[in-house]
Amino acid sequence: MVQKNIKNCIVRFEPLGRKVKVPRGTTLLEAANKAGIYINSICGGDGNCGKCKVAVNSLEKIQCGQTSLLTRDEIDKKTVLACQSKVLDDVTVIVQDSQFAQASQILISDDSQKINRISCETQEGLFEFDPIVKKIYIEMSPPTVHDHTADKERLFMALREQAGATEIRAGLEILQNLSGLLQSSGYKVAVTTGKSGDALEIISIESGNNCNTGYAAAVDVGTTTVVAYLVDLTDGSTIDTEAAYNSQISFGEDYIRRIIYAEENNAFDRLQSVIVNDINQLISAMASRKNIDIDNISAILCSGNTAMMHFLLKLDARRIRREPYVPSANFIPPIKASETGVRINKNGLLYCIPGVAAYVGGDIVAGVLATKIFTKEGISLFVDIGTNGEVVLGNRDWLVCASSSAGPAFEGSGVKHGMRAADGAIEKFAFGNDGSIEFKTIGRKPPIGICGSGLLDILAELFAHGIIDRTGRFSHGGNELVSHGDEGLQFQIVSPNAGQKEIVITQADINNLIRSKAGVFAAIKVLMASTQVETKNLDAIYLAGGFGNYLDVKKAVTIGMLPDMPFEKIHFVGNTSIAGAKTVLLSRKAQKQAEQIAGSMTYFDLMTHREYMEEFMRAKFLPHTDLALFPSGRDVKK
Amino acid sequence: MVQKNIKNCIVRFEPLGRKVKVPRGTTLLEAANKAGIYINSICGGDGNCGKCKVAVNSLEKIQCGQTSLLTRDEIDKKTVLACQSKVLDDVTVIVQDSQFAQASQILISDDSQKINRISCETQEGLFEFDPIVKKIYIEMSPPTVHDHTADKERLFMALREQAGATEIRAGLEILQNLSGLLQSSGYKVAVTTGKSGDALEIISIESGNNCNTGYAAAVDVGTTTVVAYLVDLTDGSTIDTEAAYNSQISFGEDYIRRIIYAEENNAFDRLQSVIVNDINQLISAMASRKNIDIDNISAILCSGNTAMMHFLLKLDARRIRREPYVPSANFIPPIKASETGVRINKNGLLYCIPGVAAYVGGDIVAGVLATKIFTKEGISLFVDIGTNGEVVLGNRDWLVCASSSAGPAFEGSGVKHGMRAADGAIEKFAFGNDGSIEFKTIGRKPPIGICGSGLLDILAELFAHGIIDRTGRFSHGGNELVSHGDEGLQFQIVSPNAGQKEIVITQADINNLIRSKAGVFAAIKVLMASTQVETKNLDAIYLAGGFGNYLDVKKAVTIGMLPDMPFEKIHFVGNTSIAGAKTVLLSRKAQKQAEQIAGSMTYFDLMTHREYMEEFMRAKFLPHTDLALFPSGRDVKK
Repeated sequence: MVQKNIKNCIVRFEPLGRKVKVPRGTTLLEAANKAGIYINSICGGDGNCGKCKVAVNSLEKIQCGQTSLLTRDEIDKKTVLACQSKVLDDVTVIVQDSQFAQASQILISDDSQKINRISCETQEGLFEFDPIVKKIYIEMSPPTVHDHTADKERLFMALREQAGATEIRAGLEILQNLSGLLQSSGYKVAVTTGKSGDALEIISIESGNNCNTGYAAAVDVGTTTVVAYLVDLTDGSTIDTEAAYNSQISFGEDYIRRIIYAEENNAFDRLQSVIVNDINQLISAMASRKNIDIDNISAILCSGNTAMMHFLLKLDARRIRREPYVPSANFIPPIKASETGVRINKNGLLYCIPGVAAYVGGDIVAGVLATKIFTKEGISLFVDIGTNGEVVLGNRDWLVCASSSAGPAFEGSGVKHGMRAADGAIEKFAFGNDGSIEFKTIGRKPPIGICGSGLLDILAELFAHGIIDRTGRFSHGGNELVSHGDEGLQFQIVSPNAGQKEIVITQADINNLIRSKAGVFAAIKVLMASTQVETKNLDAIYLAGGFGNYLDVKKAVTIGMLPDMPFEKIHFVGNTSIAGAKTVLLSRKAQKQAEQIAGSMTYFDLMTHREYMEEFMRAKFLPHTDLALFPSGRDVKK
Repeated sequence: MVQKNIKNCIVRFEPLGRKVKVPRGTTLLEAANKAGIYINSICGGDGNCGKCKVAVNSLEKIQCGQTSLLTRDEIDKKTVLACQSKVLDDVTVIVQDSQFAQASQILISDDSQKINRISCETQEGLFEFDPIVKKIYIEMSPPTVHDHTADKERLFMALREQAGATEIRAGLEILQNLSGLLQSSGYKVAVTTGKSGDALEIISIESGNNCNTGYAAAVDVGTTTVVAYLVDLTDGSTIDTEAAYNSQISFGEDYIRRIIYAEENNAFDRLQSVIVNDINQLISAMASRKNIDIDNISAILCSGNTAMMHFLLKLDARRIRREPYVPSANFIPPIKASETGVRINKNGLLYCIPGVAAYVGGDIVAGVLATKIFTKEGISLFVDIGTNGEVVLGNRDWLVCASSSAGPAFEGSGVKHGMRAADGAIEKFAFGNDGSIEFKTIGRKPPIGICGSGLLDILAELFAHGIIDRTGRFSHGGNELVSHGDEGLQFQIVSPNAGQKEIVITQADINNLIRSKAGVFAAIKVLMASTQVETKNLDAIYLAGGFGNYLDVKKAVTIGMLPDMPFEKIHFVGNTSIAGAKTVLLSRKAQKQAEQIAGSMTYFDLMTHREYMEEFMRAKFLPHTDLALFPSGRDVKK
C-alpha cells in the first residue's frame, strides 16, 4: 500500500502573527502547540472542558467535531474548540488574550511577604543558617620546589579542612581549568560547593575572594502555578520573587491528564521543555531585574508534587496513574541543572525535595518542614489545597498522609472566572448588612476574576445566606443576582459595564468547589479514623495553598472543608511548598530533616481505600451530611 | 590595516591520496596533521631530529629551511623535512611507510604472556578477586498496592543489601529509563556498577540475569607505546591484547616536547584526541576480534605517567615542565569515559592509577603494586626503563622515588633502527666464539629493527668485545663491521641484500643509550645515598620496561645501568604498568593500595638535586668511572 502524500497547511495565529506548517488533519490545538502557543485546555484535548475556544477566519478551512460547549453567539462568531477542529486548508486562527495559558506572562506574586515570614520563622527556631550551596574562600600557599603537591590535591586538602567534608568531587571541566585559575589568582580562590549526599560537589571556582555574592533559586513547581524565589546565599534573604502559570496547562489541567496526553502523543519531552522554559523565564526575569549574572546562580531547589518532579526531570511518570501507583523515584539525587535544560551556572545543581509516594510529593514534605508539625508534641493537621488536596496528620512521633485528588478548583482552575492570586483577583467577598455585595481585589485593581480565598468566601457566603442549599444548588428565588447564563444558573458578582467585564459564579463552579472540599474533608476523616484521632485531639490545623494573601479560615469550616475546631487554632500558612524549599536551600540540617520526613511518613492510598468514597459522598454537602460534626457552622449562617 | 587574503593551497598526500586545504605558509608537518596523517617527528617540529623526511613532486611549490640532515641522495630525490618546509602552492607529498607514526598500525604485543604471569601472581598472593566494576544480578519483588516503594528506591535498597555499599549514584539518563526497564524485566535486572570513591556508580542496567558477560579494558598509556588488555570481568582473564605506537610521537618524542608543541600551537585538544583515538582503535580492534559489543565494556583503567594522564584528560600540563614542576592532579577521580572521547559503554567509567609527582606517575605506582615491593621486609629497587627512567627504592615501611628523564632510547626511539618489541625486532644479540654476529628476532621474522633488549645486548657486547671503549666511542680498528655512515661511525648488524634492509647502530645511538643508562644509574645512586642503602643491602632489583619478551639482566649490569649484585636477584618484570592496571581493575583492595602507595611515596626531584648531575657524569662511562662499583662487569668482558 502506498501512502498518499498528506497536504501541508499553513495555520496563522493572530494577534501574535505566528505561522506554522502542519499536515492536513492536525488539530488547531496541536498546531498551536507546535507554534509555541499554549492555549488553555483543561481536559487535555478531550473536548470536554471548552477552555480552548478560538475563532477562525473561515469555517470551511476546518473540520469541526460536534460539541455542546459553544453558545449560539460563539458559533456565529466562528468560534470553535481548538482541540476538536482539524485543519483542512490554510487558515487563520484568532486567539483571545484570555485563552493563552500565559506561558510567557509572568505574574508578580504578592504571597512573598507572607511566605517570607513563615520561612524565616522556620529557620530561626529550628535550623541554623548553613546553605546546601555555599561559597568558600580558600587561600593556599603556592607550590614551591619543596612542596609540589598537585593543584587538585592542594585545593581539595584546603577545602576539606575548611568545609569539613570527607569527600569532594569535581567534574572534569573544573579539573581541566583548575591549574590556570590557581596560578592566575595566586592560589586565592572562592569555591562554590554544593552538598551531594555526604560529599561536596564543586560547582565553580572564581579568582580571589568573591564571597560576597552568590545566589540560588527556590522554586515551587506547582501543577497550576510556578513560584520562584531568588535567594541571596550570603544572608539567606529573598531578593526577588516571580510567579507564572505552569504552561503545561495546555496539555491538561491536572497532572493525570498531562500524563495521558504525553503517553498518547509521545510528548514527555515537550512536557519537560515547557516546564523548564517556565522556570527559566522566572529565573531570568528575576536575574535581569536584579542585574545578576546567571552564572552566579549556583543551585535551584525544586519543590513539587511527584508528577511535576517527574515531568521536570523526564523520569518515567506513566505508572503514577496506574495501579499500584509507583513513582520512578521519590528521592532524587542532586543533578546538574543543565542536564534538564534549566539555565543557571553550567555546573549548577538542581535539588528536589524528596517525596513520599505517587500522590504525596516533595511539596508536602516541604509543608511539613515549614509548619514544623514534625517537632510538636500535640497532633497537627496539615492541609494543602492545590491541584490535589494533600493531608498530613501527626506529631513528632508519627506522621500519616494521603492525597484527595481534589482538583484545582481553589487554585482558580476549572472555575469560569477563577484565577490565581494576582492583581485584580477578588480575594475577599461578603454580603453587607443590606444584602449588597462587598469585595476586595488584590492590588485594589479592577476585578478580573476570583482567586482561591475569594472562591471560598463566595461559597461560604452563598451558603450562609441561603442562596445555595446544602447540596450546593441555587435555591429558587434565593437572590435577584441569580440568573440563567450560558451554562445554567449563575450568580453575578460583578455586573458588566464600561471597561469592566462580568464576573459570575456558575452552578458548575459551585459543584467543582464542593467536590474539592469534599475530597479534602474525606481524606482528613480517613486519616483521623485510621489513627483514632478525633477533632478534640487536634492541636492545630495548618491550611496551605495558593489561595492568596488572606484567607478567612472560618469560611473553610463553614463549608465543611476543615474539621470544626476553635478558629484560633486554624492557621493559614500560604505557599509552604516554596517556604520549605527555601528552608532546605538554606540549611543542610533541614535537607537531612526533609529526607527523614519523606522516609518515615506513612502513606494512605485513598484510591484503594474503601472508606474514602463513603466519606467523600457524605462530605458532598454543605457543610456535611452529619451536621453534628459542624456545631459552629450554624453560627456563621446566622 | 587591512589584512591581505592569504592564498589557500591544496596539499595532497600520497600514497594515501588524502587532500587538505591549508593557508600558504603552513608547514608540511602541520598540513599532514590537519589531514590526520601523523608523521614521525621526534623534536616536535624544531628541525633537529630529521625524522619527518618526506618527498615532494616539485621543490618550487615549497619553501625549504636550511638543514644538514639531508643526504645528497635525498636532496636529489626532492626529499625535505616536513617541519621545515612551507607550502607556497598546491603540492603533492609522498610519505614513506616508515615515516608514518603508525597512528593506525596496531601491533600485536608479545609481552602478554609474561605480563599475565606477573599479574596473576600479584593477584593470587595479595588481592582477592573483587573488580572495581562488576555486574550484580538483582531480583526484586515487584510493587503492589501494599508496597509502592518507588522504583529507584526499590533498586537502590536491593543493591545496597547485595553490594554492601553505603552510597549509590546513578546519572539522570539511567533514572529516566529505570521504571520501564524494571517493569519489562519483571524486576529482575543485572546492574553494572563501578566504584567511585566510597560510593557505587551505576553504569548500566540490563534486563534479566545477564551476568555472564562483562568486560573492561586495562591500558598502559605510554609515551611511546600504548598497550591494552581486554579483561573478562567474570573471571579476571585477559582475553585479548593490543599495542600500538602512541601517535602523539609526531608532536614530539618525549612528553616535554609535546607540552612545548601544544603550548606553542594551542594543541592540547589535538594531543588529547590523538591519544584517545589510539586507545579507541586498540579497544575496538580487540572488541571486534572477540565479537564483543562496545557497550559491554564498562570501564577502562589507565596507567601512565603524569603527563600522559594530563594529555588524556586534557588537564593543564603546562607546569609539568616548569619549576616547581606541579601537576594539575595526581589523584584523578573516576570520570565518564565519554567525557574524554574514549568509546566504551556511554556511561562507562575511566579510572586512572594515581601518581606521585610530575615525573613519577601512576605507571610507577602500578609497578610498585605489581612487584609487591611495598609488602616486603627486605629492600627492593624498582627500575622502569621507558621514555623516562623512574626508580623506586624501599620496602613495606618506606618508599622513595625519582625520575631520571633518561629518554626513550631503550624503547627503540631516538635510535636510528630502534623499534618497539614487535615482529622482526632484534631482541637478542651476541658475538659467537668466532666473532660472528648472532641475533634472534621476535617471531623469527626477517630483521627490521632493534628493540630494547637487543639494544642492551648490542651495547654490552660491543663494550665487552672492545668495539666501543669506556666512553662509548668506536675504537680505532676495533672491528671490520665498523664503517663510516651518513651520521659518522656505525656498526653494521644486518648487511643490506635482497629484500633485507641494512641495520646499523650509530655513534649517536650509542651515545643516546649511554645517556639513558647513565641517567638511570645516577637516579639509583641518589636514592640509595639519600636513604643510606648500599648495594649489599638490596634484596632484589625489578627491571621493568617494554624491552621485549626477554632481557639478559647481566647485560644491564655490564653497561652499568643497574647496581652490580648477584644476577639471580635481578628480575626482568616486563610491562608492570599494564600489570598493575589490571591488578587494580580486578581488586578494590588493590585500588585502595595504589592510593596508599601514591600518597605515601617520598619523591626526590632530581632537577633540583645537586648530587644528581655529578652522579650522571660519573655514570656516562661503561660501566662507570668507579670500576670498583662493578666487580662482576669485568667477568662478562672476558
